[in-house]
Amino acid sequence: MKQPGFDFEIEKEHGAARIARYITPHGVMETPAFVAVGTQATVKSVTPEEVRDSGTQVLFANTYHLYLRPGADIVAKMGGLHKFMNWNGPIMTDSGGFQVFSLGASLEHGVGKIANIFPGEEGGVLTSARRVGEGKSLVKVSEHEVHFKSHIDGSAHIFTPEKSIAIQRALGADIILAFDECTSPLHDGDYTCQSAERTHRWAERSLDYFQKRGPQHGYAQALYGIVQGGAFEDIRKESARVIAGMDFDGIAIGGNLGKTKTDMHRVIEWTVAELPRDKPRHLLGIGDVPDIFEAVERGVDTFDCVSPTRNARNGGLLKRLDDDGTPLAKFRINMRNARFADDPRPLDEDCDCYTCKNYSRAYLRHLFKAEEHLARQLATIHNLRFIARLGEDIRQSLRDGSFKELKRDWLKPVGLYKDA
Amino acid sequence: MKQPGFDFEIEKEHGAARIARYITPHGVMETPAFVAVGTQATVKSVTPEEVRDSGTQVLFANTYHLYLRPGADIVAKMGGLHKFMNWNGPIMTDSGGFQVFSLGASLEHGVGKIANIFPGEEGGVLTSARRVGEGKSLVKVSEHEVHFKSHIDGSAHIFTPEKSIAIQRALGADIILAFDECTSPLHDGDYTCQSAERTHRWAERSLDYFQKRGPQHGYAQALYGIVQGGAFEDIRKESARVIAGMDFDGIAIGGNLGKTKTDMHRVIEWTVAELPRDKPRHLLGIGDVPDIFEAVERGVDTFDCVSPTRNARNGGLLKRLDDDGTPLAKFRINMRNARFADDPRPLDEDCDCYTCKNYSRAYLRHLFKAEEHLARQLATIHNLRFIARLGEDIRQSLRDGSFKELKRDWLKPVGLYKDA
Repeated sequence: MKQPGFDFEIEKEHGAARIARYITPHGVMETPAFVAVGTQATVKSVTPEEVRDSGTQVLFANTYHLYLRPGADIVAKMGGLHKFMNWNGPIMTDSGGFQVFSLGASLEHGVGKIANIFPGEEGGVLTSARRVGEGKSLVKVSEHEVHFKSHIDGSAHIFTPEKSIAIQRALGADIILAFDECTSPLHDGDYTCQSAERTHRWAERSLDYFQKRGPQHGYAQALYGIVQGGAFEDIRKESARVIAGMDFDGIAIGGNLGKTKTDMHRVIEWTVAELPRDKPRHLLGIGDVPDIFEAVERGVDTFDCVSPTRNARNGGLLKRLDDDGTPLAKFRINMRNARFADDPRPLDEDCDCYTCKNYSRAYLRHLFKAEEHLARQLATIHNLRFIARLGEDIRQSLRDGSFKELKRDWLKPVGLYKDA
Repeated sequence: MKQPGFDFEIEKEHGAARIARYITPHGVMETPAFVAVGTQATVKSVTPEEVRDSGTQVLFANTYHLYLRPGADIVAKMGGLHKFMNWNGPIMTDSGGFQVFSLGASLEHGVGKIANIFPGEEGGVLTSARRVGEGKSLVKVSEHEVHFKSHIDGSAHIFTPEKSIAIQRALGADIILAFDECTSPLHDGDYTCQSAERTHRWAERSLDYFQKRGPQHGYAQALYGIVQGGAFEDIRKESARVIAGMDFDGIAIGGNLGKTKTDMHRVIEWTVAELPRDKPRHLLGIGDVPDIFEAVERGVDTFDCVSPTRNARNGGLLKRLDDDGTPLAKFRINMRNARFADDPRPLDEDCDCYTCKNYSRAYLRHLFKAEEHLARQLATIHNLRFIARLGEDIRQSLRDGSFKELKRDWLKPVGLYKDA
């Protein structure tokens, strides 16, 4: 069932990769596209205009956080997320499941989504959870519902698939997600399988509630199903088939993507192979440069991640090459480094962002050393622009057939390119 | 001796008050004007464009802070403060004296400039000083020089009048200040008198160094002398006469302004009565609404203060009347107040700032409760605009002869107006 105001038009394919125009009630995204994270209805440290001017097309807000604070009812009363946060472009929200389970699972296992990190998670939650929960899991799952405790004040809450959809209807993002359970890399096959099957039943309940209730708050919205199954090939493929078989408007790839990059690549391949061509695909919580190339190559259309903005706030500014032409292994430099203390050059002479056009490295370093907020703001503006430009270059390469060359140019110098 | 590129043109006088155009190498200020504080070469939490768009005309940076970090040599190497911080309008710097002595004197007496606060001082310094110095004074004064310790790392430093001017020449602000000692309200008349006399000798040394060395870094700059003397009438008047008799380009009123608002008003009156009409006058560290009216009425042209920007960061947003028409005693509301939780209105419907044009009170409250940086940014934009508009209104009232009425309209409802 196509939602009014939405259309997904594939312009060109290049192997599994594709370039498309994704029309939403709040404008068109050109995909593949990076989705900037604005957990609490703000992309940390920047204004919506600064986000837009960076070339960022779409934002991702977190249902769990907004449900707890300020509350979905308040966002609805303010006219929905777009008006509330002064962002007139497309917005996605997650189902709340990832945060609910990352609190619980992380306490259980001490690990996150992949390799001990939570790429899709804003900072502070784990710490807070540990503080509030004092080491005990804050989450209890049953077939019908999930009980969890707020990381803010320890208060008890319940999510169901229906409640997640009702909250997301009230928040009013353009693209919303079915409620799912997110397993950890340390869950075994049995648990991962049971969990995926429950997630499929929750997907049905989410879809049913979404379709039968309709847009109570008047927003046209699209609903994505979420594929789970951990890094187990049979479970992942089965999950992809089940979710692909439901009447969702798009598909998100969620959950733990394994322990290595190779695991992650395989999980994407297993999943995408089962998905319909004509629905948009979102990869949850991925956004480092090499991952973006690998995901796009395997047919992912959109991907969200806190890393460009979180790194910015920590002084990690995105850059491809160092001044002597050396490739930067993680595509970033540490702005606090003493070598920048008296360096009058912009961070990146080839960058057209506000930061690089107006400020020296010496000034950026000074702001970071002096712990001035403007450091985080200028760094975030740059990193968002860096990722948006990468997206522009990737789309152009898909248009003119040079994607493989672009990927090789970026990844080979840092030893991350494998000939297919 | 008039400095090239500077001119101070009085347009109209109204008792002691006056409206003027102050031409500097970086543009014209219309005075009376509020000077926004950018201690570490950034107005905390906002970009220079946001400062400019608020109607703010001129910035104030702190020599003490910039000398310690990043260092005046680095700022000079980057082309001076204007280029370093991307602010093309007029800039003032202080001499470093206030910070040097506020660290020392505050530790001695436990009090600041007036009524236990440091209106001209950015947050964190006192705390840090206490931490570094463990209760001992960090400053030692002799006729020739001042020894002090860095609040950042406890390292030992020396300032002399000559060094203060050399640093300010290197920083390159349009308006710079002679080196002075700032006494506390608990210093007695004897000490205050000795200190003021030393400050006069330092003023001579500052002026001498400024004139003889000239602009080593190529910036045209104006030098202000600073009147001291605490709240003692004879010392203050004598200080004003001495400083007025030297060849400074303008006069700043510094030091402790007494223990009450009445003390402060008298100190300004004693001082201004001794000053030449044709030189600009700056009042250091004052910027609350009632103080602005009182200072302007007594002939002050410019005044700097952290309070509008610091209050903003703490959730204190400037507003004249509450929604029911009640005057707000401190001209501000606490944005964290629960009554704003679901309030869709802009903070101030009459305000034309970016914040009031684009965001609801509910959103601002949410950002403060969620401790998102955007809260501080939006609040700072609003408070700067509020003070800039007050300045515009005051200048207009001086132009059309309605200053007394404007002052009464603002201050009478809050019980702060006395008929002259």
